[in-house]
Amino acid sequence: MSLHGDYDPDNVFARILRGDMPSVKVWEDDQVLAFMDVFPQSEGHVLIIAKASQARNLLEVEPEVLSHMALALQRTARAVEKALRPDGLSVMQFNGAAGGQTVFHLHFHIIPRWEDRPLKGHGHAPMADGETLKALAGRIAAELD
Amino acid sequence: MSLHGDYDPDNVFARILRGDMPSVKVWEDDQVLAFMDVFPQSEGHVLIIAKASQARNLLEVEPEVLSHMALALQRTARAVEKALRPDGLSVMQFNGAAGGQTVFHLHFHIIPRWEDRPLKGHGHAPMADGETLKALAGRIAAELD
Repeated sequence: MSLHGDYDPDNVFARILRGDMPSVKVWEDDQVLAFMDVFPQSEGHVLIIAKASQARNLLEVEPEVLSHMALALQRTARAVEKALRPDGLSVMQFNGAAGGQTVFHLHFHIIPRWEDRPLKGHGHAPMADGETLKALAGRIAAELD
Repeated sequence: MSLHGDYDPDNVFARILRGDMPSVKVWEDDQVLAFMDVFPQSEGHVLIIAKASQARNLLEVEPEVLSHMALALQRTARAVEKALRPDGLSVMQFNGAAGGQTVFHLHFHIIPRWEDRPLKGHGHAPMADGETLKALAGRIAAELD
Protein backbone atom coordinates (compact mmCIF):
# COMPACT_ATOMS: atom_id res chain seq x y z
CA MET A 1 0.00 0.00 0.00
CA SER A 2 2.21 2.78 1.25
CA LEU A 3 5.18 1.80 -0.94
CA HIS A 4 3.17 3.09 -3.88
CA GLY A 5 1.20 6.25 -4.40
CA ASP A 6 1.58 9.90 -5.18
CA TYR A 7 4.13 12.27 -3.74
CA ASP A 8 2.53 14.67 -1.26
CA PRO A 9 3.98 18.14 -2.00
CA ASP A 10 3.01 19.25 1.51
CA ASN A 11 5.05 16.66 3.38
CA VAL A 12 7.31 18.09 6.09
CA PHE A 13 10.54 17.76 4.10
CA ALA A 14 9.02 19.37 1.01
CA ARG A 15 7.97 22.28 3.23
CA ILE A 16 11.49 22.54 4.66
CA LEU A 17 12.93 22.56 1.13
CA ARG A 18 10.51 25.33 0.11
CA GLY A 19 11.45 27.35 3.16
CA ASP A 20 7.93 27.07 4.59
CA MET A 21 9.26 25.31 7.67
CA PRO A 22 12.49 25.87 9.56
CA SER A 23 15.27 23.31 9.82
CA VAL A 24 18.73 23.23 11.34
CA LYS A 25 21.07 22.77 8.40
CA VAL A 26 24.38 20.92 8.61
CA TRP A 27 25.31 21.47 4.98
CA GLU A 28 23.84 21.50 1.50
CA ASP A 29 24.85 21.56 -2.13
CA ASP A 30 22.77 21.97 -5.25
CA GLN A 31 21.39 18.42 -4.92
CA VAL A 32 21.13 17.49 -1.25
CA LEU A 33 20.41 18.90 2.18
CA ALA A 34 21.76 17.47 5.44
CA PHE A 35 19.90 18.70 8.51
CA MET A 36 19.29 17.79 12.13
CA ASP A 37 16.39 15.48 12.94
CA VAL A 38 14.13 17.49 15.22
CA PHE A 39 13.09 14.27 16.96
CA PRO A 40 16.58 12.80 17.43
CA GLN A 41 16.91 9.16 18.35
CA SER A 42 20.32 10.05 19.72
CA GLU A 43 22.55 13.13 19.97
CA GLY A 44 23.71 14.12 16.48
CA HIS A 45 20.93 12.41 14.50
CA VAL A 46 21.16 13.83 10.96
CA LEU A 47 18.92 13.37 7.91
CA ILE A 48 19.96 13.46 4.25
CA ILE A 49 17.39 14.38 1.59
CA ALA A 50 17.49 15.17 -2.10
CA LYS A 51 16.28 18.61 -3.10
CA ALA A 52 14.81 18.16 -6.55
CA SER A 53 13.57 14.57 -6.53
CA GLN A 54 9.97 13.77 -5.71
CA ALA A 55 10.86 10.19 -4.83
CA ARG A 56 8.94 8.94 -1.82
CA ASN A 57 11.37 6.10 -1.27
CA LEU A 58 14.36 4.08 -2.44
CA LEU A 59 12.31 2.27 -5.08
CA GLU A 60 11.38 5.47 -6.85
CA VAL A 61 14.51 7.61 -6.72
CA GLU A 62 16.46 8.48 -9.84
CA PRO A 63 19.76 6.51 -9.87
CA GLU A 64 21.94 9.60 -10.26
CA VAL A 65 20.21 11.23 -7.29
CA LEU A 66 20.70 8.08 -5.22
CA SER A 67 24.42 7.95 -6.03
CA HIS A 68 24.84 11.53 -4.94
CA MET A 69 22.85 10.89 -1.76
CA ALA A 70 25.11 7.94 -0.93
CA LEU A 71 28.19 10.14 -1.20
CA ALA A 72 26.50 12.82 0.89
CA LEU A 73 25.66 10.15 3.43
CA GLN A 74 29.31 9.15 3.71
CA ARG A 75 30.56 12.73 3.85
CA THR A 76 28.11 13.52 6.63
CA ALA A 77 28.74 10.30 8.56
CA ARG A 78 32.47 11.00 8.55
CA ALA A 79 31.89 14.49 9.94
CA VAL A 80 29.49 13.20 12.60
CA GLU A 81 32.07 10.64 13.65
CA LYS A 82 34.84 13.23 13.89
CA ALA A 83 32.68 15.75 15.72
CA LEU A 84 30.97 13.51 18.24
CA ARG A 85 33.21 10.43 18.45
CA PRO A 86 30.36 7.95 18.90
CA ASP A 87 31.13 4.24 19.44
CA GLY A 88 29.10 3.40 16.33
CA LEU A 89 26.78 4.81 13.67
CA SER A 90 23.53 3.29 12.47
CA VAL A 91 22.29 4.25 9.04
CA MET A 92 18.60 3.64 8.40
CA GLN A 93 16.38 4.27 5.43
CA PHE A 94 12.72 3.35 5.77
CA ASN A 95 10.28 2.68 2.96
CA GLY A 96 6.55 2.62 3.58
CA ALA A 97 4.81 3.02 6.92
CA ALA A 98 5.32 -0.70 7.61
CA GLY A 99 9.02 -0.18 6.92
CA GLY A 100 9.21 2.55 9.56
CA GLN A 101 8.76 5.59 7.30
CA THR A 102 6.95 8.60 8.74
CA VAL A 103 7.74 11.32 6.15
CA PHE A 104 7.19 10.27 2.56
CA HIS A 105 10.12 12.05 0.96
CA LEU A 106 13.12 9.73 0.60
CA HIS A 107 15.62 10.23 3.43
CA PHE A 108 18.55 8.54 5.11
CA HIS A 109 19.07 8.64 8.87
CA ILE A 110 22.55 8.86 10.39
CA ILE A 111 22.23 7.92 14.04
CA PRO A 112 25.29 8.08 16.31
CA ARG A 113 25.42 5.27 18.84
CA TRP A 114 27.08 5.00 22.20
CA GLU A 115 27.49 1.75 24.04
CA ASP A 116 26.04 3.14 27.26
CA ARG A 117 23.11 5.08 25.74
CA PRO A 118 19.94 3.31 24.61
CA LEU A 119 18.42 4.46 21.33
CA LYS A 120 15.19 6.45 21.48
CA GLY A 121 12.36 4.97 19.43
CA HIS A 122 11.81 6.25 15.89
CA GLY A 123 8.73 8.46 15.95
CA HIS A 124 8.68 8.44 19.76
CA ALA A 125 11.65 10.61 20.65
CA PRO A 126 10.97 14.02 22.23
CA MET A 127 11.43 17.19 20.17
CA ALA A 128 14.89 18.66 20.53
CA ASP A 129 15.73 22.19 21.60
CA GLY A 130 16.65 24.34 18.58
CA GLU A 131 19.73 25.89 20.15
CA THR A 132 21.06 22.45 21.08
CA LEU A 133 20.57 21.28 17.50
CA LYS A 134 22.28 24.39 16.11
CA ALA A 135 25.30 23.77 18.33
CA LEU A 136 25.51 20.13 17.19
CA ALA A 137 25.11 21.11 13.53
CA GLY A 138 27.93 23.59 13.91
CA ARG A 139 30.24 21.02 15.44
CA ILE A 140 29.45 18.53 12.65
CA ALA A 141 29.77 21.11 9.87
CA ALA A 142 33.19 22.11 11.21
CA GLU A 143 34.44 18.58 10.51
CA LEU A 144 33.24 18.30 6.90
CA ASP A 145 35.92 17.45 4.36
CA MET B 1 36.78 1.86 19.17
CA SER B 2 35.18 -0.53 16.74
CA LEU B 3 34.69 2.13 14.04
CA HIS B 4 38.44 2.05 13.54
CA GLY B 5 40.86 -0.80 13.15
CA ASP B 6 42.16 -3.30 10.66
CA TYR B 7 40.10 -5.33 8.23
CA ASP B 8 39.92 -8.98 9.29
CA PRO B 9 40.43 -11.06 6.13
CA ASP B 10 38.77 -14.02 7.86
CA ASN B 11 35.44 -12.32 8.54
CA VAL B 12 32.40 -14.29 7.37
CA PHE B 13 31.74 -12.18 4.27
CA ALA B 14 35.38 -12.32 3.17
CA ARG B 15 35.16 -16.09 3.45
CA ILE B 16 31.96 -16.13 1.39
CA LEU B 17 33.66 -13.98 -1.27
CA ARG B 18 36.65 -16.34 -1.36
CA GLY B 19 34.34 -19.33 -1.72
CA ASP B 20 35.43 -20.73 1.64
CA MET B 21 31.89 -20.52 2.96
CA PRO B 22 28.61 -21.11 1.16
CA SER B 23 26.00 -18.43 0.56
CA VAL B 24 22.68 -18.24 -1.25
CA LYS B 25 23.23 -15.76 -4.04
CA VAL B 26 20.52 -13.50 -5.44
CA TRP B 27 22.73 -11.85 -8.04
CA GLU B 28 26.22 -10.50 -8.56
CA ASP B 29 28.25 -8.44 -10.96
CA ASP B 30 31.96 -7.71 -11.05
CA GLN B 31 31.67 -5.32 -8.10
CA VAL B 32 28.91 -6.50 -5.76
CA LEU B 33 27.21 -9.60 -4.40
CA ALA B 34 23.60 -9.74 -3.19
CA PHE B 35 22.85 -12.80 -1.07
CA MET B 36 20.34 -14.05 1.47
CA ASP B 37 20.99 -13.31 5.14
CA VAL B 38 21.26 -16.70 6.79
CA PHE B 39 19.81 -15.23 10.00
CA PRO B 40 16.89 -13.36 8.40
CA GLN B 41 15.08 -10.75 10.43
CA SER B 42 12.14 -11.31 8.08
CA GLU B 43 11.35 -13.39 5.00
CA GLY B 44 13.43 -12.13 2.07
CA HIS B 45 16.19 -10.41 4.08
CA VAL B 46 19.01 -9.72 1.59
CA LEU B 47 22.53 -8.36 2.08
CA ILE B 48 24.58 -6.29 -0.37
CA ILE B 49 28.38 -6.35 -0.14
CA ALA B 50 31.21 -5.09 -2.30
CA LYS B 51 33.60 -7.72 -3.63
CA ALA B 52 36.94 -5.97 -3.86
CA SER B 53 36.78 -3.36 -1.12
CA GLN B 54 38.24 -4.04 2.28
CA ALA B 55 36.13 -1.34 3.87
CA ARG B 56 34.81 -2.32 7.26
CA ASN B 57 32.14 0.36 7.19
CA LEU B 58 30.60 3.39 5.50
CA LEU B 59 33.35 5.69 6.74
CA GLU B 60 36.07 3.71 4.98
CA VAL B 61 34.54 2.70 1.66
CA GLU B 62 35.83 4.10 -1.62
CA PRO B 63 33.26 6.58 -3.05
CA GLU B 64 32.97 4.79 -6.40
CA VAL B 65 32.29 1.49 -4.61
CA LEU B 66 29.66 3.15 -2.43
CA SER B 67 27.88 4.62 -5.47
CA HIS B 68 27.74 1.23 -7.11
CA MET B 69 26.49 -0.38 -3.88
CA ALA B 70 23.70 2.20 -3.66
CA LEU B 71 22.52 1.33 -7.17
CA ALA B 72 22.75 -2.37 -6.35
CA LEU B 73 20.72 -1.70 -3.22
CA GLN B 74 17.98 -0.07 -5.27
CA ARG B 75 17.99 -2.77 -7.94
CA THR B 76 17.70 -5.47 -5.30
CA ALA B 77 15.07 -3.65 -3.24
CA ARG B 78 12.89 -3.25 -6.33
CA ALA B 79 13.14 -6.98 -7.06
CA VAL B 80 12.38 -7.90 -3.44
CA GLU B 81 9.31 -5.67 -3.56
CA LYS B 82 8.06 -7.20 -6.79
CA ALA B 83 8.73 -10.77 -5.68
CA LEU B 84 7.39 -10.66 -2.13
CA ARG B 85 5.03 -7.66 -2.10
CA PRO B 86 5.87 -6.58 1.44
CA ASP B 87 4.04 -3.62 3.01
CA GLY B 88 7.37 -1.86 3.53
CA LEU B 89 11.15 -2.24 3.30
CA SER B 90 13.69 -1.22 5.91
CA VAL B 91 17.25 -0.57 4.78
CA MET B 92 19.86 -0.69 7.52
CA GLN B 93 23.60 -0.26 7.49
CA PHE B 94 25.42 -0.64 10.78
CA ASN B 95 28.86 0.72 11.63
CA GLY B 96 30.72 -0.51 14.66
CA ALA B 97 29.49 -2.99 17.25
CA ALA B 98 27.70 -0.17 19.09
CA GLY B 99 25.99 0.70 15.81
CA GLY B 100 24.65 -2.84 15.47
CA GLN B 101 27.37 -4.28 13.22
CA THR B 102 28.24 -7.97 13.67
CA VAL B 103 30.34 -8.65 10.54
CA PHE B 104 33.05 -6.10 9.85
CA HIS B 105 32.84 -5.99 6.07
CA LEU B 106 30.60 -3.13 4.89
CA HIS B 107 27.08 -4.34 4.10
CA PHE B 108 23.57 -3.06 3.57
CA HIS B 109 20.52 -4.92 4.84
CA ILE B 110 17.27 -4.99 2.86
CA ILE B 111 14.55 -6.15 5.22
CA PRO B 112 11.00 -6.66 3.92
CA ARG B 113 8.33 -5.61 6.40
CA TRP B 114 4.75 -6.69 6.83
CA GLU B 115 2.29 -4.85 9.02
CA ASP B 116 1.23 -8.01 10.83
CA ARG B 117 4.68 -9.58 11.29
CA PRO B 118 7.08 -8.38 14.01
CA LEU B 119 10.72 -8.03 13.05
CA LYS B 120 13.16 -10.57 14.47
CA GLY B 121 16.05 -9.04 16.38
CA HIS B 122 19.34 -8.42 14.53
CA GLY B 123 21.80 -11.05 15.71
CA HIS B 124 19.05 -13.00 17.46
CA ALA B 125 17.06 -14.48 14.56
CA PRO B 126 17.22 -18.27 14.03
CA MET B 127 19.26 -19.69 11.16
CA ALA B 128 17.19 -20.19 8.03
CA ASP B 129 16.79 -23.41 6.09
CA GLY B 130 18.97 -23.40 2.95
CA GLU B 131 16.26 -24.66 0.62
CA THR B 132 13.87 -21.98 1.81
CA LEU B 133 16.50 -19.31 1.17
CA LYS B 134 17.24 -20.71 -2.30
CA ALA B 135 13.55 -20.57 -3.20
CA LEU B 136 13.32 -16.95 -2.01
CA ALA B 137 16.51 -15.99 -3.86
CA GLY B 138 15.08 -17.49 -7.03
CA ARG B 139 11.84 -15.55 -6.70
CA ILE B 140 13.75 -12.29 -6.11
CA ALA B 141 16.25 -12.92 -8.93
CA ALA B 142 13.36 -13.53 -11.34
CA GLU B 143 12.17 -9.96 -10.75
CA LEU B 144 15.50 -8.20 -11.34
CA ASP B 145 15.45 -5.52 -14.03
